[in-house]
Amino acid sequence: MASLHPDTLLVRWKEITEAWVAIPSVSTDTARKADCRRAAQWLADLLYDAGGTVELLEGYGNPIVLGRVDVGAPTTIVVYGHYDVQPAAREEGWETDPFELVYRDGRYVARGVMDNKGQVAIHLAAALALKEAGELAHNIVFFVEGDEETGSPHLAEAVQSLREILRQDAIVVSDGVREHNLPTLELSFRGGFNARVWLRTLAADQHSGMMSRVVPNAPEVLVRLLAFALQEGEGGLFEILARDAPAPSAEVEADLAVLPFGKEGIARATGARVVHPKNAQEYGRWVGLEPSLSITTLRAGYLGEGYRNALAATAEAKINVRLAPQQDPEAAAERFREWWRERFAQTEEIVEGDVAIDVPYRGVMLPRDNPWLNRAGRVWEEVTGRAPVRTYCGGGIPVVTLFHEEVGAPLVVTPLASEGGNMHGPNENVNEFVLREGLAWSARWFGARE
Amino acid sequence: MASLHPDTLLVRWKEITEAWVAIPSVSTDTARKADCRRAAQWLADLLYDAGGTVELLEGYGNPIVLGRVDVGAPTTIVVYGHYDVQPAAREEGWETDPFELVYRDGRYVARGVMDNKGQVAIHLAAALALKEAGELAHNIVFFVEGDEETGSPHLAEAVQSLREILRQDAIVVSDGVREHNLPTLELSFRGGFNARVWLRTLAADQHSGMMSRVVPNAPEVLVRLLAFALQEGEGGLFEILARDAPAPSAEVEADLAVLPFGKEGIARATGARVVHPKNAQEYGRWVGLEPSLSITTLRAGYLGEGYRNALAATAEAKINVRLAPQQDPEAAAERFREWWRERFAQTEEIVEGDVAIDVPYRGVMLPRDNPWLNRAGRVWEEVTGRAPVRTYCGGGIPVVTLFHEEVGAPLVVTPLASEGGNMHGPNENVNEFVLREGLAWSARWFGARE
Repeated sequence: MASLHPDTLLVRWKEITEAWVAIPSVSTDTARKADCRRAAQWLADLLYDAGGTVELLEGYGNPIVLGRVDVGAPTTIVVYGHYDVQPAAREEGWETDPFELVYRDGRYVARGVMDNKGQVAIHLAAALALKEAGELAHNIVFFVEGDEETGSPHLAEAVQSLREILRQDAIVVSDGVREHNLPTLELSFRGGFNARVWLRTLAADQHSGMMSRVVPNAPEVLVRLLAFALQEGEGGLFEILARDAPAPSAEVEADLAVLPFGKEGIARATGARVVHPKNAQEYGRWVGLEPSLSITTLRAGYLGEGYRNALAATAEAKINVRLAPQQDPEAAAERFREWWRERFAQTEEIVEGDVAIDVPYRGVMLPRDNPWLNRAGRVWEEVTGRAPVRTYCGGGIPVVTLFHEEVGAPLVVTPLASEGGNMHGPNENVNEFVLREGLAWSARWFGARE
Repeated sequence: MASLHPDTLLVRWKEITEAWVAIPSVSTDTARKADCRRAAQWLADLLYDAGGTVELLEGYGNPIVLGRVDVGAPTTIVVYGHYDVQPAAREEGWETDPFELVYRDGRYVARGVMDNKGQVAIHLAAALALKEAGELAHNIVFFVEGDEETGSPHLAEAVQSLREILRQDAIVVSDGVREHNLPTLELSFRGGFNARVWLRTLAADQHSGMMSRVVPNAPEVLVRLLAFALQEGEGGLFEILARDAPAPSAEVEADLAVLPFGKEGIARATGARVVHPKNAQEYGRWVGLEPSLSITTLRAGYLGEGYRNALAATAEAKINVRLAPQQDPEAAAERFREWWRERFAQTEEIVEGDVAIDVPYRGVMLPRDNPWLNRAGRVWEEVTGRAPVRTYCGGGIPVVTLFHEEVGAPLVVTPLASEGGNMHGPNENVNEFVLREGLAWSARWFGARE
């Protein structure tokens, strides 16, 4: 490790990233299927040329790259990542070609530079440079899929059939953003589901001049029910969903207390006039450890330009539900469904109502007593001089739940992207210092036993 | 009058209607401009051939037909109508060609057979048959426009410049449906306006996993405000709008009390499980004499298939407002606007809000002490053996307000179409008996002084 100059790692990262981001492996665009395969093949060749053994796994959508860099070490670390990217087009606001790696104002810019090719490339650069220097202290298995941006529809299947190969000493996942650019260990992810609530009050739309106040207007009935559903008090949906959400442990509360939290920063970033949580703990609990409900769609009546003078026969809302990490999503979905069914039955104006729930998914709370996690934390401290923050994430990374439940190996989820990197948007980028810290962390972690 | 056999009138009506409905004068379809002109010209020729004097008035959209059948009588009646029709296509559910007059199961079927060519044709058949028989007791002026279905954008202008020609002894308007197929005199129409309420809580949509409960979601803020706005109690919009709506007079209440009212019929016709008014008077007041508010559009967040996990930065509702006949629509619109502005100012989550109000229009309450109206009622009673019902309409016929305010001549608004006639829908039709009663009424009204 001592022999690896930081610049060597950066040069290696740039070589890998530059070539890889040039392949527009956009999985959400079926016209890019061949490019996805090219991006997989490119990675396979890289690992093969570095002396690894590589397979392209077929039958799970875009090929999964499974590559092993074996140095005969007694321990093996699995690196998860994905080579597919979000779409990007110059006219969406990119200042340069999205598929060309560019250095500008202290940042590297390209589609995929962090989500996720660039983060995988950090681990690739570290592992390959260490191997060449004879300093790689663990065998490394790269497990890199090509359908993350389309929801990894076949990943569960792949993980189940590769369970034995993936059940190694540790699995590292780097696919997110560092909290305030601090070294970050992510310890939980929420579960949840999406639901569509739909109701009918009339056989067909009715003339508003003739029938207003006489017969029920579906949007008004929906508005009344939603207003009641979303208040956080007694009888509302939040209370129903939160019923079996466990209170965070004292350790978790202590982690939340040290997180940086600034209402002004959130207000500035989102354009909100009001930021509801009072402090870091409330913020952390609300976002990561308790359920939430958001209306993501309201749709009723006439959607065109101008006006149509009609009561609407039907109305629809879509609701995004998040659940505390340990909650049973099926049970929560059933309570959600039941709540609406009762409302439909008790609301005499409703002729017909329906709740459709999209596959509920499980969150995960990772164990804190994992020696690999502790070592990851120590390495962060050695590299940056700062103890990592432990975070409890609002979103989900389904693959983490999958690894935790299906594989059972200790997980280290540590994001390497910088804040303000505009993942999924134009000019996706990474801050050079954050990038260098990631390279140093990966090299030190892969390069030593203790 | 004695010499006119009812069948003569019906034959005459069929001749006129058959030829006129065959011209697809769809004013909402710009490709049908020439057909609109053909329909106008056809009517002009009919009146000219019958010895009338006719003008096609240009400069007000589709030509307005102004035709005078003069028999040197001391009194003149103006007939308002429109020759333009709604679109119609066989594949929308028509059992026969929409532009061919067909007799089926006791009904005449064609686009325009009641809205409005067929109703104008009733007055044409009566006037021309009476003239030929030497029994027409009044001069008749036909004022027939071609832009009613597009909202008569130039009619106010035309009426203002023709004020002296239109200011005759009476104006008859037949452009609606008889209440339960009873002889009907329409005495009031509501005013109103459409409004679009829009608000913003965020600069851009936010990830629902990261920001739910932290920053305000626009659809939820809108739902809360709408739920409060639409309750009919203290502080809600209904109360604000109803503030200057006069209570109906005892005479009007008496008219309402005799209207047929059946919850079952309304429930059957609309598919509603609940019909709110308790009795005929409540129904009549709510629909015709008090304000109403209806959400006609709800629109926020992701409107496509499936789901997008994002808090929405903005949300929108459109609201159709109806006002009591005598209310000042500008003042009501200002109170409506002010209510929302206060809400926007008081709701700290709202970054930006807007209320756009589409041109408020005035309703009208016609005087009851009009001798022409009384005679119209007596004629209905002579013809059908039933006293007409007096109705207070939920919708508006803007031309009636216009005639009342700009011309000032006594108005007789008496619809001649039958219920279930599916105006604006496929298989528009009129019941033969209702049609015959209309012909008899028009002939008797035009054919006698007293």
